Amino acid sequence: MVSTQYGLIRTIQVRNANVPGVLGALATAVGQAGANIGNIVTVHISQNHVVRDIDVLVNDEAHLADVLYNLNSLDDVDVLETRDEVLGLHRGGKIEMVSRHPVDSIATLRKVYTPGVADVCLRIADDPSLARLYTTIHRTVAIITDGSAVLGLGNIGLAPSMPVMEGKAALLHQFVGVSGVPLLMDVSSIDEFVEAVVRIAPTFGGIHIEDVAAPGCFELVERLRARLDMPVMQDDQDGTAAVVLGAVLAASKATQSPLRQLRIGQIGLGAAGQAVADLLMHATDNPVLGADLSGESLERHKSHGGIPSDIEEIMRTADLVVATTGVKDLIKPEMIRPGQIILALSNPDAEIDPQVALSAGARLAADGRSVNNVLGYPGIWSGALRSQATEINREMLVAVGQCLAELAPEGELMPNPLDLDVHRRVAYAVARAAVATGVGVEMGAEELEAWSGT
Amino acid sequence: MVSTQYGLIRTIQVRNANVPGVLGALATAVGQAGANIGNIVTVHISQNHVVRDIDVLVNDEAHLADVLYNLNSLDDVDVLETRDEVLGLHRGGKIEMVSRHPVDSIATLRKVYTPGVADVCLRIADDPSLARLYTTIHRTVAIITDGSAVLGLGNIGLAPSMPVMEGKAALLHQFVGVSGVPLLMDVSSIDEFVEAVVRIAPTFGGIHIEDVAAPGCFELVERLRARLDMPVMQDDQDGTAAVVLGAVLAASKATQSPLRQLRIGQIGLGAAGQAVADLLMHATDNPVLGADLSGESLERHKSHGGIPSDIEEIMRTADLVVATTGVKDLIKPEMIRPGQIILALSNPDAEIDPQVALSAGARLAADGRSVNNVLGYPGIWSGALRSQATEINREMLVAVGQCLAELAPEGELMPNPLDLDVHRRVAYAVARAAVATGVGVEMGAEELEAWSGT
Repeated sequence: MVSTQYGLIRTIQVRNANVPGVLGALATAVGQAGANIGNIVTVHISQNHVVRDIDVLVNDEAHLADVLYNLNSLDDVDVLETRDEVLGLHRGGKIEMVSRHPVDSIATLRKVYTPGVADVCLRIADDPSLARLYTTIHRTVAIITDGSAVLGLGNIGLAPSMPVMEGKAALLHQFVGVSGVPLLMDVSSIDEFVEAVVRIAPTFGGIHIEDVAAPGCFELVERLRARLDMPVMQDDQDGTAAVVLGAVLAASKATQSPLRQLRIGQIGLGAAGQAVADLLMHATDNPVLGADLSGESLERHKSHGGIPSDIEEIMRTADLVVATTGVKDLIKPEMIRPGQIILALSNPDAEIDPQVALSAGARLAADGRSVNNVLGYPGIWSGALRSQATEINREMLVAVGQCLAELAPEGELMPNPLDLDVHRRVAYAVARAAVATGVGVEMGAEELEAWSGT
Repeated sequence: MVSTQYGLIRTIQVRNANVPGVLGALATAVGQAGANIGNIVTVHISQNHVVRDIDVLVNDEAHLADVLYNLNSLDDVDVLETRDEVLGLHRGGKIEMVSRHPVDSIATLRKVYTPGVADVCLRIADDPSLARLYTTIHRTVAIITDGSAVLGLGNIGLAPSMPVMEGKAALLHQFVGVSGVPLLMDVSSIDEFVEAVVRIAPTFGGIHIEDVAAPGCFELVERLRARLDMPVMQDDQDGTAAVVLGAVLAASKATQSPLRQLRIGQIGLGAAGQAVADLLMHATDNPVLGADLSGESLERHKSHGGIPSDIEEIMRTADLVVATTGVKDLIKPEMIRPGQIILALSNPDAEIDPQVALSAGARLAADGRSVNNVLGYPGIWSGALRSQATEINREMLVAVGQCLAELAPEGELMPNPLDLDVHRRVAYAVARAAVATGVGVEMGAEELEAWSGT
């Protein structure tokens, strides 16, 4: 059930003597305990002392104790407190549904509520296309899960999956101004799941399926697409594939290796891995070597045009390796072929640490911290909704990959997810691809105005 | 289908000579066309001219043309433009799901999203009660409709009902900080409706049923209450009854007529009317006279302890009359008995205009503009969620009525809905009643902190 040990982020407040060299000793002490350091914020400086908040990423509470032991062993360093700022940011939940306009006068109240609202209702009843302009329906996405495959944590259930859904919604609004509404579905079969989504679908402009276990998720998405005339995205497949394609294109450019000449291997052919392999085969027009423990998955990969293989062959022969297995340290340094490109994407623990891969001779290496869905789904939804796309097709996902590769800075495989312009440009690329493939339309002036400011 | 003509609110910008008396002439011209004036905002004043935005409430476009004709007939007055600010406020929708914390650094991204979020998921998996602190579930309400009885407009369908649901959600957050998530349910039977709500219920702290046609709504609510261990409120019944009780208590106080001695008549025994009659009978411990066109409704009223009657008898004998019929001008001035208290609550067109009722001898009169659900449901939800109430029972609704009556200023039947303290006090009264009746619990310190700032 709860299978993977995720890391903890803690903030340690320390006071040390205000003399040169102490911060170096302090960071070394944390590093010697095997912990990573995040932000360091200076809280207070006096004549004699400095107080800093140091974020550390540790494996568990025992690991945190090691870090604190090392810090307390230093001269001139006092640990003042250890805080859990992750919990603090989750307190009260991470999202809220707010009014877009302050209702601070009776006049406004009568415009957004009765009696004014009735005029808007009647206009939409007369001309349903006006719902696009005067409701939130077409700028809102349902973020739906049954809690069956949450992060790498497995089937943890509904309420425990809510922080992930809220995080997805928080970033969706933050990056592209689209509202995400988490919906935890208490369903015991795919039949029930499909019916429940179809019932609530008229509220939304699109359906975002998140963290639903394979193979049920395949049938779910297929049936929803057949029943609904709105985009249905499975982020673990569609979003992941688009973002990985971006990293592959960026790697091809950075290494000046023509895409069609890259021999690509995909280790792990689960939901995400197969979607990645499929999109890469489409984009490169070449088969991808695939490895998986499951014979069934290898068969499926073959039927999609791929070449069944194994991890040894892939590591020995592929120019570019993508791994999505969920198995920490699966790829040993000695398996790396000099000059190889390694995308070890399992979160939180990659199949090989990028630094280790580079030391072992890899030309480029990245993990799921940089090659992350957060670069895909916000722009995909923004572009799909703005272009009134009826589906999210392969060409739109390819457009995401191309856009991300173009925006990746020199020496990086991915652009910065905090740069809002990245998401705007992904959205634009998606909308253009939707129009070009006939599933979307150009936005009119009124619609542009309704979206303005977001 | 679309049966009632709601009014339109338009904003007329006029420029007139900057001399005394022109505004009076202008307001008179609007009044002579039979239109109501809302806000008047001065936009610009120069040596010679004043430009003002004047909100007018008219019946329809033809009526608006009359108003404009009268204005244009005045000397020294130019109509510069006519705007539809209602539509403007609805453009792009009225609500949005936002992040409660700006995600503006990689450190924050890693706390609200992977890898930090996993720790919160695991804590909730270990102790489900923590969902109350670290997710939005227990501070979010689903606002659910099938679009079958929207305002007085009838069965206008799903998308046309969205502006009403968004308005409810906007005010819910504005007044008490609770998130409301509209859900438009594409269902063709009560069976389907119940199943769909049960599936998505784990996402929410409560279920708010809005604008579902009778008699289906009765069965829906009853079955949902049996299936779910969270509060299920039908606002058209529960919220309306609580607010009307408040007006009745305030009227009793203002007229120094002891509540138990008031002879009360309820005209209209639909979903709202029957709920009002039931709560008034509970609060006064006396039967209520009831009138309705439907024999079935009269029978039901009798079985609830009421006295079947008719409109003539009620108007002739009742001290206090509540009307919820949806029929404009049903009560003629000559039917008013001197000293009577009249609550003519149909929206947007009351059974008798309060001014007309007062002129005809009524001692107190109000309509749905002041005696409005907006004074009830926000505080009810806030109080129910904060006290972890498992249901919204009659005692909690009585507490709402008592609280509103206490807060009504001298000479008014209702407090000001824009006064946030009113909603806070309603919430407190509801929470106290939940605890007193054993369906809610006192809030702990941690929970109080999680709710702070809202």
